Amino acid sequence: MEQRVSLVTLGVDDLGRARRFYEALGWTTGAAPDDDVVFFQAGGLVVGLWSRAALAEDSGIEDGGMEDGGVEDASGWGGIVLAHNVRSPAEVDAVLAEADAAGGTIVRTGAPTFWGGYSGLFRDPDGHAWEIAHNPSWALAEDGAVRLG
Amino acid sequence: MEQRVSLVTLGVDDLGRARRFYEALGWTTGAAPDDDVVFFQAGGLVVGLWSRAALAEDSGIEDGGMEDGGVEDASGWGGIVLAHNVRSPAEVDAVLAEADAAGGTIVRTGAPTFWGGYSGLFRDPDGHAWEIAHNPSWALAEDGAVRLG
Repeated sequence: MEQRVSLVTLGVDDLGRARRFYEALGWTTGAAPDDDVVFFQAGGLVVGLWSRAALAEDSGIEDGGMEDGGVEDASGWGGIVLAHNVRSPAEVDAVLAEADAAGGTIVRTGAPTFWGGYSGLFRDPDGHAWEIAHNPSWALAEDGAVRLG
Repeated sequence: MEQRVSLVTLGVDDLGRARRFYEALGWTTGAAPDDDVVFFQAGGLVVGLWSRAALAEDSGIEDGGMEDGGVEDASGWGGIVLAHNVRSPAEVDAVLAEADAAGGTIVRTGAPTFWGGYSGLFRDPDGHAWEIAHNPSWALAEDGAVRLG
């Protein structure tokens, strides 16, 4: 697994509110007003905003959430998923195998995704979630930096 | 606030275990064996491993933690803090003022830190924590990339 981060996805309860917050900080996105995911190019990586419920489901995480002001579940998840993009589906499977051998927990094995790529997901020994993804739509520079189109 | 991420700190319950996990994935660090923080250069940003309890305390977050296998608190925090490094203490204060005006919650106002820099911290509307930091020991490239010494 190369030593880099491609995408930090922040799960949010209200996408419009979250988007307005980051835009008020001066951040700009190419997302359309009604897109359900908002990506910001942030240096050599991307910061994404997505429904926390959708992110949890996509990541195979049971999330107590915060909606009812109640108590969190014991998953230890705070609504953030890191992603590491690679150059092929085979490389996704190879990194997941490394993570498994190293003591990570494979939450989702490599498989085609609804967005047209291929990915799987592991959690590290402290529960931090890493999606390993091949996204044919995102350019990966030689040094691993991700650039939105 | 420029559109970039400088540091992703993963709070961990057992630093040795976490370090061994990332090293088993092939990651390398310049940290000494008994350092209590482990930094990995990860492209133009840094991934850090630090005691989850220390990270929570440093970040002004009340963390239910996972130690007793019990239920999480309602903070919604999963042990991750993002950091955005800037070029001066004054810029730390300016970004915190922007975050405050945009509807973020200022958890820690700008102040000198134990590690010799100056920082403050806000949480976005969904509770995601951002430390805004001036670290005189870390080079910040013109494009904002962070390079460990």
